[in-house]
Amino acid sequence: MLGSVKQYKMKKSETAEELAEMQARLIDLANAVKAAKIPVIITIDGWASAGKGSQIAKLIKYMDPRFYKVKPIRIPNEQEKRKPWMHRYWTKLPGKGEFLILDGSWFADTVKSYRYGTIDKEGYKHRIDDVNTLERQLRDDGYLIIKFFLHITQDEQKRRVKALAADEVTKWRVSDHDFENLKRYDKIFKKYDKTLELTNTDSAPWHIIPANDKLTAQVEILRTVTESIEAACSAKEKGILCTLPPQFPTIKYKPQKFKLVKTKKLAEIDMDRSLTDEEYRKQLKKYQHRLFELQNICYQKKIPVIVAYEGWDAGGKGGNIKRLASALDPRGYEVKPIAAPEPSELARHYLWRFWNRLENDGHFTIFDRTWYGRVMVEPIEKITPQERADMAYLEINEFEQQLSDWGAVIFKFWINIDKDEQYRRFKERENTPSKQWKITDEDWRNREKWDEYEKAVDRMIKLTSTEFAPWTVIEGNDKKYARIKALKTICDRLEQEINKD
Amino acid sequence: MLGSVKQYKMKKSETAEELAEMQARLIDLANAVKAAKIPVIITIDGWASAGKGSQIAKLIKYMDPRFYKVKPIRIPNEQEKRKPWMHRYWTKLPGKGEFLILDGSWFADTVKSYRYGTIDKEGYKHRIDDVNTLERQLRDDGYLIIKFFLHITQDEQKRRVKALAADEVTKWRVSDHDFENLKRYDKIFKKYDKTLELTNTDSAPWHIIPANDKLTAQVEILRTVTESIEAACSAKEKGILCTLPPQFPTIKYKPQKFKLVKTKKLAEIDMDRSLTDEEYRKQLKKYQHRLFELQNICYQKKIPVIVAYEGWDAGGKGGNIKRLASALDPRGYEVKPIAAPEPSELARHYLWRFWNRLENDGHFTIFDRTWYGRVMVEPIEKITPQERADMAYLEINEFEQQLSDWGAVIFKFWINIDKDEQYRRFKERENTPSKQWKITDEDWRNREKWDEYEKAVDRMIKLTSTEFAPWTVIEGNDKKYARIKALKTICDRLEQEINKD
Repeated sequence: MLGSVKQYKMKKSETAEELAEMQARLIDLANAVKAAKIPVIITIDGWASAGKGSQIAKLIKYMDPRFYKVKPIRIPNEQEKRKPWMHRYWTKLPGKGEFLILDGSWFADTVKSYRYGTIDKEGYKHRIDDVNTLERQLRDDGYLIIKFFLHITQDEQKRRVKALAADEVTKWRVSDHDFENLKRYDKIFKKYDKTLELTNTDSAPWHIIPANDKLTAQVEILRTVTESIEAACSAKEKGILCTLPPQFPTIKYKPQKFKLVKTKKLAEIDMDRSLTDEEYRKQLKKYQHRLFELQNICYQKKIPVIVAYEGWDAGGKGGNIKRLASALDPRGYEVKPIAAPEPSELARHYLWRFWNRLENDGHFTIFDRTWYGRVMVEPIEKITPQERADMAYLEINEFEQQLSDWGAVIFKFWINIDKDEQYRRFKERENTPSKQWKITDEDWRNREKWDEYEKAVDRMIKLTSTEFAPWTVIEGNDKKYARIKALKTICDRLEQEINKD
Repeated sequence: MLGSVKQYKMKKSETAEELAEMQARLIDLANAVKAAKIPVIITIDGWASAGKGSQIAKLIKYMDPRFYKVKPIRIPNEQEKRKPWMHRYWTKLPGKGEFLILDGSWFADTVKSYRYGTIDKEGYKHRIDDVNTLERQLRDDGYLIIKFFLHITQDEQKRRVKALAADEVTKWRVSDHDFENLKRYDKIFKKYDKTLELTNTDSAPWHIIPANDKLTAQVEILRTVTESIEAACSAKEKGILCTLPPQFPTIKYKPQKFKLVKTKKLAEIDMDRSLTDEEYRKQLKKYQHRLFELQNICYQKKIPVIVAYEGWDAGGKGGNIKRLASALDPRGYEVKPIAAPEPSELARHYLWRFWNRLENDGHFTIFDRTWYGRVMVEPIEKITPQERADMAYLEINEFEQQLSDWGAVIFKFWINIDKDEQYRRFKERENTPSKQWKITDEDWRNREKWDEYEKAVDRMIKLTSTEFAPWTVIEGNDKKYARIKALKTICDRLEQEINKD
């Protein structure tokens, strides 16, 4: 792709009018984006010394600073290294009607990590998948992604680096490293070109900008931004997803197919499992002790552990989580109760709030209700249309795979009780003063939709039971049995994973 | 204080019943805290090897893990060093009905910083003030703060450190440093004792726990926690602030008195200032250029800059901020629009969301509306009772002083227009299609309360114009004049501050 980009030079006198017009239009368009509630991400990648910083400054000059954020992407810092590599992009997502402008992006991140040996060839391939997945997920959610690569020729780069080094004021910005890279232009060219090609999808096609001449680059960027926003606004009005006309033929990107493990339907679960008090006490002690030791090893090996709890109302999640938590060193885990999303969460991709809640590697993140609300309560309660919710099976498998790639061991528990047991517990709650806060009219209303929920749960378990993130259905009529099963499941798999290394 | 604490040993057989009873009560009390919406902070400080971690583990064993977080406080990491020292405590604040348990706290932070020379004697005194201020501010907001210091004798400490070092499994936890500190027991004793005394206030009195015997410590901690929560719930029911019976006579803590600079009333401002187009263009260029250079210096010197914008509706804040922002390197500032608080923000101290929005040192944080909503819109719109809002003048001066101590240069702009000019601009917005989104019924309603607002603004400016964070009233009838005045104010003071060093 890079090879076909021709450098050229616009004349100031010829472009002045167009430029002024586009700048004025951009102000209106930013308002239109706000009105249409479109979240916009603009990424600026390119060669060293291609002028990324100054092009960003020119671009935002005409925008309302209350509605954009500019974030430079550098080598990950210590905090960022303790999270999945995509974490720092997810947590920066703009809300509806806002702009995020990235100085460097997941593109440069990938190329540089490969060049500097942070990742190997296999890792590079994974990252390309992650990038295409991210862009597709965001685009499917209504994000407009405009990606720029500022291209300059080898001679021009040489000229700029030397000019910087010759100037007393700017010479601190040039390192030996920059001079060495000048010699590696051809090699880097190939890496950039290959990566551009592999990430040039319909969700977010590349715009390669000839940037030898700064004014020309400015005009091209501004033109692309204004045209893209116009296209997005007009698509939004028609209620369709926006497809930008690509500068280069896009690749046929196909989402990954996930190998699913065989699962049972809830109706097939034997609900008669139970434990005696004595057996419970014995096993609780045993597994809590074992888990504490395993947590220590995970901490030292920096293995992240994700435990996701779902289950029927009154299924006993709270008590189950408590037995898990009380086994652990309190400085090494956090429980994240998931309630209805706040406005800032509703303004972003639904996975945003879960990315935001991930603890560091070496720690346990325990979710009390999870991202699976997307395929259960949301379509049933008509918060999300069924066809939109259906897209989440794939999105969730992808999300969990990225957690797994990060090194996370993922547990997903469905705590199952039968309808009679739920009735008994609801009634008990109603009749016990200290438990009355736990039971609301909504619980009774949800109960009426039992069959609908059961169907959704069966489907969810079937479609999201991957090898790296399998579901464990926990027979929950007997709380003691349920608690031990959760603890045992965690201990057994952690042991297995630790011994793998 | 430490000298008067006697070590003693409870017998397991004698305490077993009481312990079990308190543990059961704690479960109910945690529910009561949730129902009463009291946010609770428990801090556990004490000697090295005093058993802080294991006491925390015992304490939370009986609590619902969805409603507490445990946070270890260590030496500040790179990220934390770029913020005010109190930032990491503020950002961790629990919401209403939640528990935050700190393993180490601002107390140990202060003692250690002083011992290791991070701060000098003057800095130590400042921190003591900051601690007492923090605790008073939180208590005034309804927080329950329970502070523990686990006290062990020199012999006991020696015994524990040696035991740890002798055990193959735990010896990695003991460093040379720990052995050296054993010899410094007396010296450290004095520092602890002095600091305990200076921070033993009615807002958050100390509980010094004799911890030579672990069971005894556990019982004392649990007893204090249950009694404190009971007291807080009962105070809340009566609608009063909770005062815990202190173990030791508390100090008479008096909030700082701030020296205020003389200010004018809005009615005394000459509103006829203006600039010609030509003068505006010339000065805009000059000050934007100068500001860009000053930003660079601030970045290199790691000076944080805070710019707070307030003003009448249609006063021209947006355009003013835009001229400021467009002068700056976009990677070095962020604009924070302040809208109505979200549920998670309403559940915490009102200053929480501002602490949360601070950028790193070396960066500009630009607030579009600010913490001053507390003393303007909130009492006028009856969101906060007037007497509660009145407490904010002091709280805000304290907040801004802490920013100033961090090294921040603080600008506070009130953009002033007169009533006729506002009417003209409202009408213009109504008649300009692209500006109609900027004008709502609420703007007209607020306008009706002009006199009430003017009184509040006069009072706010009078009571919060300190030397380190003075207000600048900007004559805003002419937008050009207003923009230049803001830029010039920033440039002049930054220059002055930079040359001070």
